[in-house]
Amino acid sequence: MKISVLGPAGSYSEKAALLFFSKCRPDDEKELMYSPTIENAVLNLFNEEQPADFAVIPLENSIEGAVGISMDLLNEKEVTINAEIIIRIEHSLLSLETSLFNIETVYSHPQGLYQCRNFLREKLKNARLAETDSTSKAAQMAAANPKRAAIASAEAGRKYGLNILETNIQSVKNNRTRFVLISKNDAIGISKSKEMMDSVSDAFEKKNGKMDLKTSVISYLKNDQPGALYHILGAFFKHNINLTRIESRPAKKELGDYCFYIDFEGDRSDEGVQDALKEAATQSDRLKILGTYGRLSE
Amino acid sequence: MKISVLGPAGSYSEKAALLFFSKCRPDDEKELMYSPTIENAVLNLFNEEQPADFAVIPLENSIEGAVGISMDLLNEKEVTINAEIIIRIEHSLLSLETSLFNIETVYSHPQGLYQCRNFLREKLKNARLAETDSTSKAAQMAAANPKRAAIASAEAGRKYGLNILETNIQSVKNNRTRFVLISKNDAIGISKSKEMMDSVSDAFEKKNGKMDLKTSVISYLKNDQPGALYHILGAFFKHNINLTRIESRPAKKELGDYCFYIDFEGDRSDEGVQDALKEAATQSDRLKILGTYGRLSE
Repeated sequence: MKISVLGPAGSYSEKAALLFFSKCRPDDEKELMYSPTIENAVLNLFNEEQPADFAVIPLENSIEGAVGISMDLLNEKEVTINAEIIIRIEHSLLSLETSLFNIETVYSHPQGLYQCRNFLREKLKNARLAETDSTSKAAQMAAANPKRAAIASAEAGRKYGLNILETNIQSVKNNRTRFVLISKNDAIGISKSKEMMDSVSDAFEKKNGKMDLKTSVISYLKNDQPGALYHILGAFFKHNINLTRIESRPAKKELGDYCFYIDFEGDRSDEGVQDALKEAATQSDRLKILGTYGRLSE
Repeated sequence: MKISVLGPAGSYSEKAALLFFSKCRPDDEKELMYSPTIENAVLNLFNEEQPADFAVIPLENSIEGAVGISMDLLNEKEVTINAEIIIRIEHSLLSLETSLFNIETVYSHPQGLYQCRNFLREKLKNARLAETDSTSKAAQMAAANPKRAAIASAEAGRKYGLNILETNIQSVKNNRTRFVLISKNDAIGISKSKEMMDSVSDAFEKKNGKMDLKTSVISYLKNDQPGALYHILGAFFKHNINLTRIESRPAKKELGDYCFYIDFEGDRSDEGVQDALKEAATQSDRLKILGTYGRLSE
């Protein structure tokens, strides 16, 4: 089983992938494919020679919000969400050096730099900040030169032989990222995904004894229908369906044209959910169903 | 009059600021304060020695979506939106070189790299990509070494003595960014802002002969009230108020806690708007009004 994640080794995406496989597929032989970018991690699903079975990508962070490129890829590519995986993000400052004093450049993913900006301003205000495609890439960069530091997980520090100068340096201590495990539709589409996850349902979180399922859809609202979003939310409200997230993304035609990502509690095969989705479809030019899936947390 | 923008000279933020001042305050003496980051551009309003009168910051792009840091600053700081300014974003590839062949590194703001990723993949697939805090900073970096190129505006290229190797290289040709002109509340608060803009109302876009006004608010929904967002949208719908944008941002407490940015057509002093806002307030733990403002477009 091949799983595509943001690399190099030691990324939070890898951590999410490993959590999923240790809980749901502990006996499978697995191979991690490390990709330089989130886009490449998803494109690996469509690789003709060596396709990945799954990709694990970050969708939103509790401080920084939506990961735009991941949301766009869910929309553009024919993929299914099979599971969500919640990972605690605890950033450390890592370096070959043992003191902050000699550090000239701090590397991290833009979200890492952003989440730790108060620490950087207080403790490393003369250091240059340099963005990398992943936090583990930053750790790799820091391992090449003692004048460099990285913001990444303590695990990444150990992996690249770095000292851990400070831990838990992000401004908001309760920092989590929500990852999704996705597959190519014509490999593991929505129905097969459900079946597959049901077979390991014990691994997932429960609510009232049942797997706590969530469904995700993307709606392109009908432009000529005033209040289309209001009516869609009304359909869910009427059927007592809890929305857990509403996020807009540009529809990429005109400034001011959006599509909406809606996550809600429930299984897409539930009767009430089906009714609500039918009503949502009448208010949408296009309604894409991304999947029904369970949750794993660290 | 001091205006704080993302620098160095030649940024799209500067272009937005100059458009505003040429249309609304052509006779004022103005001084641009160039800031290395968006956060610094806003903090300049609160500088005790040399406060800026206004800051111009990007809020959303038609391809890449919301600019998270700008949205967070509107929420955290006591500022008023005085105007929105829509700028066409046409990226060029700039270098001291005249051919693509010798370029080793391409610099740009992350949004610039993202918006031009198809071009980069096709034409410069071996070049290293390096992120900068602004597109004009990228142009400045490219001017230091012929092996470098920048993605920035053609104007920035001319400013830094670079060749324009290709123009209009972003994937979606119709690419616009919405900037906002903001001021510190206790310098130019909401009422004074209205008065000030009314005095130059001819500069702004019209609808049915009147200034085409928009109002922006941020709502923290009451968590214990199911369907709170649905009811808020209903209040606007009932009063025939068109929503132009709804965007969620993390409330930064728990993953899954959001606040909502809502933009709608109309003046906050209109009776219908006031009624809708009153209803919205009953569904909100906190409702912050960012301002009522007109629009300028390139």
